[in-house]
Amino acid sequence: MRRSGSRTAPPEPSPEGTPVAEPWEELKRLLTEGRRDEIVPFLASLATGETARAVNRLDDEERHALLTMIQPEEAAGLLDALPDLEAAGMIEDLSAREAAAIVEEMPSDHQADLLGDLEDREAQAILDHMAPPRATTVRRLLGYESETAGGLMIAEYLAYPDSGTIGDVVEDLRAHGELYSGYNVQYAFVVAADGRLAGVLRVRDLLLSPAHTVLRNIMLPDPLRVPDSAPLDGLKRFFDEHPLFGVPVVDPDDRLVGIVRRAAVEEALRHRATRTFLAMSGLVGEEELRTMPLRARSFRRLSWLSLNIVLNVIAASVIALYQDTLSAVVALTVFLPIISDMSGCSGSQAVAVSIRELTLGLIRPYEFMRVVVKEGAVGILNGVILGILLGALAYAWKQNIYLSLVVAAALSINTVVAVLVGGLIPLLLKRLKLDPALASGPILTTVTDMCGFFFVLSFATVMLGRLT
Amino acid sequence: MRRSGSRTAPPEPSPEGTPVAEPWEELKRLLTEGRRDEIVPFLASLATGETARAVNRLDDEERHALLTMIQPEEAAGLLDALPDLEAAGMIEDLSAREAAAIVEEMPSDHQADLLGDLEDREAQAILDHMAPPRATTVRRLLGYESETAGGLMIAEYLAYPDSGTIGDVVEDLRAHGELYSGYNVQYAFVVAADGRLAGVLRVRDLLLSPAHTVLRNIMLPDPLRVPDSAPLDGLKRFFDEHPLFGVPVVDPDDRLVGIVRRAAVEEALRHRATRTFLAMSGLVGEEELRTMPLRARSFRRLSWLSLNIVLNVIAASVIALYQDTLSAVVALTVFLPIISDMSGCSGSQAVAVSIRELTLGLIRPYEFMRVVVKEGAVGILNGVILGILLGALAYAWKQNIYLSLVVAAALSINTVVAVLVGGLIPLLLKRLKLDPALASGPILTTVTDMCGFFFVLSFATVMLGRLT
Repeated sequence: MRRSGSRTAPPEPSPEGTPVAEPWEELKRLLTEGRRDEIVPFLASLATGETARAVNRLDDEERHALLTMIQPEEAAGLLDALPDLEAAGMIEDLSAREAAAIVEEMPSDHQADLLGDLEDREAQAILDHMAPPRATTVRRLLGYESETAGGLMIAEYLAYPDSGTIGDVVEDLRAHGELYSGYNVQYAFVVAADGRLAGVLRVRDLLLSPAHTVLRNIMLPDPLRVPDSAPLDGLKRFFDEHPLFGVPVVDPDDRLVGIVRRAAVEEALRHRATRTFLAMSGLVGEEELRTMPLRARSFRRLSWLSLNIVLNVIAASVIALYQDTLSAVVALTVFLPIISDMSGCSGSQAVAVSIRELTLGLIRPYEFMRVVVKEGAVGILNGVILGILLGALAYAWKQNIYLSLVVAAALSINTVVAVLVGGLIPLLLKRLKLDPALASGPILTTVTDMCGFFFVLSFATVMLGRLT
Repeated sequence: MRRSGSRTAPPEPSPEGTPVAEPWEELKRLLTEGRRDEIVPFLASLATGETARAVNRLDDEERHALLTMIQPEEAAGLLDALPDLEAAGMIEDLSAREAAAIVEEMPSDHQADLLGDLEDREAQAILDHMAPPRATTVRRLLGYESETAGGLMIAEYLAYPDSGTIGDVVEDLRAHGELYSGYNVQYAFVVAADGRLAGVLRVRDLLLSPAHTVLRNIMLPDPLRVPDSAPLDGLKRFFDEHPLFGVPVVDPDDRLVGIVRRAAVEEALRHRATRTFLAMSGLVGEEELRTMPLRARSFRRLSWLSLNIVLNVIAASVIALYQDTLSAVVALTVFLPIISDMSGCSGSQAVAVSIRELTLGLIRPYEFMRVVVKEGAVGILNGVILGILLGALAYAWKQNIYLSLVVAAALSINTVVAVLVGGLIPLLLKRLKLDPALASGPILTTVTDMCGFFFVLSFATVMLGRLT
């Protein structure tokens, strides 16, 4: 276990770039030969990422065999190492009874996450096969919004009545030690008779206090807590400020309902960052893995591409209005995509600065004027420089000063438009309670394309006599 | 301190969208009126994000006044709440002696981060004004790469010789309680005579063992540790696997040299994610805030834009080769930007899926064939669908079936090219040890633009007789 930092690094491929044998080939072999005793030790021998990759390469039948050949407890651990959608897909291919046996072995927050990823009907069938108290707990967790304290909490925690004694607690811990060891619990809480969170116990108190001490008299009263509706960003700030591994969650009546672990908040933040990255790249909805069926992958991508083609046609329709100018000065066609793309880049930079300043809290969504002043200045400076650059290139190519002026002016002005639009869109989207990272790109591109095409072609139309 | 989740939410603007008085106006007033006693309580009364925003709006003179009017300890806390570059800028505006007094009050990892952001000469001047032992420590920390255990660790930790006793430790803790309380330390380590990390002490042992117990006999031997060269990803995996708030860092001779705190790793991961987001948006290097001088902001953005104009000119030069075709069929100009942008989007989706699969470890950088097969299938399906869509639009506009065929075929084929290139670039960059998230976009756009223009215009040239 020493030097874990380097220990868990994935194995380097051999010098030619191709390793000798891929782990999934070995796993397939073990599965087809039915060597169930060797599967778990083999999976345990793989580096962190390799398990997911090996399972990823199995076909549906092999995955089914894998989950049913190993113990439910081991299957639960294996699913935990896989991407969410892949784990959900594997559970769906099992019978409800087989699935329930595996789900029972997970912590309650993972149970809720996994069942939340399934179709309602399938989730219900699995819940019906689970032990009733656990099923009730999971149903309760499924009722919360996913990115809130309620949606992230676990239902496994230690809580004792404030009228109990240290002796009661120590006895309970001894009696259920094995069960509790799976809870990964760091704190024990004290609740009042009506379920309200009253205090927290220190390890030191459990060790050093006489057995007859009443919990109410020794607990740290009024511990930190978060409401079950607390949003993810609030939880992030909470754990930034407090070096704790978990925080109790209370309902509106201040009753203890669960614990949010720091790790769950970190994981949810990573998920959100991934969703943003994928959406910015044109992958809307849940993530895509290349193991998914072709139709599903194609359909998800097309949902964004078909919206994009509409936006593109709108922007390009500006060009259609100036066909006469273009047929007179066909050299302009070279500059249309350059001006559209350059302005898009300038605008993206402004979008990124605005999103960053919104995230850091350096700007509020109503401060439009500040963005106009700050971006306007950069836009004019960069626009003039880029315009001169492109104008010089145009002159070098065609030796027509008027053509140079047209493209230089169009790029300069459109750069100003692009940074203003790019800087303001995130503020506007934020005011409309939309995610700036997701929607800014397409709006920006459509506007800068339309304006860019319009500036080049309308200026050229005015100067038409000088250009031909 | 209760319900921190909701407590720290920023105040809502008033219904008209503009709050009555901005916090920075109040702060400016306190500074100009020289009411130094009211400044710290006022800053403490602001919500988390508001402090940064209020300071952000001060001019250089006001910022200087702010840092010198409050105690160095409070100034250190204030700088901690600001974006890194802004904190560095404020320190630069102070005299080396004033700056050193404030830097002295920071934990050693923040000292190193801050001084690392300054010009070498200024950092040296500040170090010269610091107490020699602290300066030596910071110089040592500055010697490490920033995203390694050495670069992230703090030099404040508790370590005792293995020949010492529990009594020695307890006495030391009592004598230096106040100093150590600032360490935010959760563990005490035991080192051998040669400085090698030998063990860790449990709180329980300190409380319950007789004073004459020798540490060597009671410590947990051979604790988890990471080498000072451990990379950020290795540290992330370490803390994912171990519920610890910190891990000891050892040099190649296994000597204890510092502690990496979990919070430092989380912060470094957030910084890296931010850098990626900014670079993907065309902001290379460090982040930009709108308070920076115009010239700096303009220059940073131009560094990427001027590379981009070169890439654009290369791509658009394909259009220049087909001026005759374009002047014969000017309607084609409408389709050039549509095909270029649509292919770019299809390619971005494939880039995102590849980056995601690389991150999850589901694919290795040498598995080119897998990407070709999987992306090829999606590319053909989506390419055909999008081609038919665009072809139909073209027919509706010009009623020329050959024009429709040209644009449909060009978009279909270029979609396949785009998803293949987009899917493969991240793998290729990864093999070249470059960051796929940063460089994939520009390469992809240039290739898909060139190919897109080439397909439309070369197909049109072949069909020229039918198009006019």
